[in-house]
Amino acid sequence: MQNPTRLIPVLFLATIALGTLLLLLPIARAEEGGAPFMTALFTATSAVAVTGLIVVDTPTYWTGFGQGVILFLFQIGGFGIMTAATLLGLVAGRTFGLKDRMATQIERSRLDIGDAKSVLKLVLAITLVVEAIVTAILTLRLRLAYDYDWGSALWNGLFQAVSAFNNAGFSTYSDSLMGFQSDAIILAPIMIAVIITALGFPVMQELRERPFEFERWTLHSKITVTGTVVLLLAGWLGMMAAEWTNPETLGPMQLGEKALNAAFHSVMPRTAGFNSLDVGSFRDETLMGNYLLMFIGGGSAGTAGGIKITTFVLILAIVVSEVRGQRDAVLFGRRVHQDVERQALSVVVLALLLIAVATSILLAITPHSLRDILFETVSAFSTVGLSTGITGELPVLGQLVIIVLMFVGRVGTITVATALALGAARRPYRYPEENPIVG
Amino acid sequence: MQNPTRLIPVLFLATIALGTLLLLLPIARAEEGGAPFMTALFTATSAVAVTGLIVVDTPTYWTGFGQGVILFLFQIGGFGIMTAATLLGLVAGRTFGLKDRMATQIERSRLDIGDAKSVLKLVLAITLVVEAIVTAILTLRLRLAYDYDWGSALWNGLFQAVSAFNNAGFSTYSDSLMGFQSDAIILAPIMIAVIITALGFPVMQELRERPFEFERWTLHSKITVTGTVVLLLAGWLGMMAAEWTNPETLGPMQLGEKALNAAFHSVMPRTAGFNSLDVGSFRDETLMGNYLLMFIGGGSAGTAGGIKITTFVLILAIVVSEVRGQRDAVLFGRRVHQDVERQALSVVVLALLLIAVATSILLAITPHSLRDILFETVSAFSTVGLSTGITGELPVLGQLVIIVLMFVGRVGTITVATALALGAARRPYRYPEENPIVG
Ligand SMILES: [K+]
Ligand SMILES: [K+]
Repeated sequence: MQNPTRLIPVLFLATIALGTLLLLLPIARAEEGGAPFMTALFTATSAVAVTGLIVVDTPTYWTGFGQGVILFLFQIGGFGIMTAATLLGLVAGRTFGLKDRMATQIERSRLDIGDAKSVLKLVLAITLVVEAIVTAILTLRLRLAYDYDWGSALWNGLFQAVSAFNNAGFSTYSDSLMGFQSDAIILAPIMIAVIITALGFPVMQELRERPFEFERWTLHSKITVTGTVVLLLAGWLGMMAAEWTNPETLGPMQLGEKALNAAFHSVMPRTAGFNSLDVGSFRDETLMGNYLLMFIGGGSAGTAGGIKITTFVLILAIVVSEVRGQRDAVLFGRRVHQDVERQALSVVVLALLLIAVATSILLAITPHSLRDILFETVSAFSTVGLSTGITGELPVLGQLVIIVLMFVGRVGTITVATALALGAARRPYRYPEENPIVG
Repeated sequence: MQNPTRLIPVLFLATIALGTLLLLLPIARAEEGGAPFMTALFTATSAVAVTGLIVVDTPTYWTGFGQGVILFLFQIGGFGIMTAATLLGLVAGRTFGLKDRMATQIERSRLDIGDAKSVLKLVLAITLVVEAIVTAILTLRLRLAYDYDWGSALWNGLFQAVSAFNNAGFSTYSDSLMGFQSDAIILAPIMIAVIITALGFPVMQELRERPFEFERWTLHSKITVTGTVVLLLAGWLGMMAAEWTNPETLGPMQLGEKALNAAFHSVMPRTAGFNSLDVGSFRDETLMGNYLLMFIGGGSAGTAGGIKITTFVLILAIVVSEVRGQRDAVLFGRRVHQDVERQALSVVVLALLLIAVATSILLAITPHSLRDILFETVSAFSTVGLSTGITGELPVLGQLVIIVLMFVGRVGTITVATALALGAARRPYRYPEENPIVG
């Protein structure tokens, strides 16, 4: 394996191709005949990239076989990205540039990470345990409170649970989880599964090894967990403040239901993509908050998308240190190397450029508003899967734009960019220094 | 003058207060009685900040006296910001942090800048010469081609010329320059004045001293001039591509007129704020391009707003070097110091935060669309002055938000932030290093 940075996109593309072929089979589609190529490609990409944006209604368009293929794809996709991101650091330790630093950081922050095999084993174990617990709760609830037969309860419970753990956002319900908006026993386990998995593998491992020793945690875990808590609280309060009186969302609900659904929609934009409220009815200021939460996403080396919490926190820390006239960005008593600062900046700028280009194209070729299109592109890039409802109305070119966004957003702007630039000649000398006036 | 960073906001506030008082006088308003306080405050801030956003129609709402006050305010504002930004570097050379680096950079890039007196003299000379030439051309044109009487031709010519040189965007015409969209002899001198002044003082001085010796220019001048040329060309081509068939803008025009007006609207978003086309009729993709052009703005230490061309180019250079795995951001054979890189990042992040907060507030308190509000907030922050037409409809709180944006955008996120943080204790030791996983 000479160049693992290139291998990962290839593996993802191969999985998407396989998924597309399976979804093209007539037995995958509920109606007569096979699905059109674009529908199969879009759905397969969305599943492998664990995004959850859909151009057709999952439960009515696809057969049980088709839904099984989708479930298989997002389980493979979620497992793949979590192990790949973690292993990249171990395998690519000898090369130059970004990859090198990425590797070094993972090694530094996870000193006891062991070898590749133990990573795979551990990811598999966490996946199976969490998915089994959530499946059990949902299945029992659907059987006991909703009178599903056992088979149907198990299938729906399993699909929702696997989708939640892999942050996939696909659902066997046409209205996602809006039918369960009063049911904390359905929504809570899904929220918890999403929060755990969105932390990313290194943090999950840390939490498993020393859950109550915050002081001993790596800087990466401290930032990710603290950032997660702050973003969840801010999202929850912001959601309630903005939607409290909206007659289409929280307005008609009782106090407890308001709090539950606001909490659910504070967790979901941070990459999971289920919805218990109608996103298309959200107020503009709610969407603004959602743009930011989606763009930030979750923890590194997990199924979460976005630029990642550490990237966002580090950018803020740089600005704070700069405004204070301090030399280093300091977080939890540790300074961060300037190379890592530049890496964070690069991730954010490349993400913004990609979203801006995609948004411009969609604005030009569709009649939809900036509000809806920006929501769609950020959701696709950050592999969130929430939508104001325009996905199915996009023309073919628009669907292709979203497909590219989902793929690049998942496999990673940096991975792609590094892969492109690998092998570029390195300059052994430095140019003389001269500085422009800035700002 | 112990702390010039704090002095500048105070001087600007004092000028705005004086302008507000003058505009409150009954002789400033065309109708009976004085203007309401908010109208006077908004107009004075917009003029001193050389923004050009208006809540009332300049030629019909204000008397000749009122218009004279506005002219006086944006001339003072433009002269003030250009000299202040240049002098800040000279005066503040001894302090710490950002200001210190800013000063050092100006000194480095303008080795022969001389003393404060010569800066003032030179700015004054350039101002008078360019304004006199443009006034003369416009006056003659208005007299000869439009049959204005001499007094009226001179007044309108002078007002447009001073507004152009100071990037103010105020006009004595209710439809800005839409009435002259076929007249290159009116539009071209205004465009040229705007382009010159938007380069900023250090570049203007360089162009004056060695106009044809690009190789000998400072890095700052090279980036600013090259960036300006690229942005103008990109804006021109993009404008034509997007609006060519729009029946409300370029659609009905002849080829030459299309090219002229597209060029004009490639120059104007980069801070001047005149319009020869109806901005409210622009297509969504045109507005996307305008958001970016406005946000970037012009050259440092001039009347241009925005994050500045050098800041934008440097950010891109950092990302390119990072993707290529190179150690330094290199521009024109010079590497840039990492401290300056962090400064550029800080300017951009603070600008984005400010715009995001303002946009969220306006989305919550007004019925306008994200498309129009984002245009308004970016225009205000970057002191451009273009609008899709919602300024006059904003509620009082909305006007206050725009006032703050114009002020902070003009006096500078960094200046304000540095002023706030000055005197903060400096830490003589460094924390141990530890790096999170990023992206
Ligand atoms: K998702
Ligand atoms: K302006």
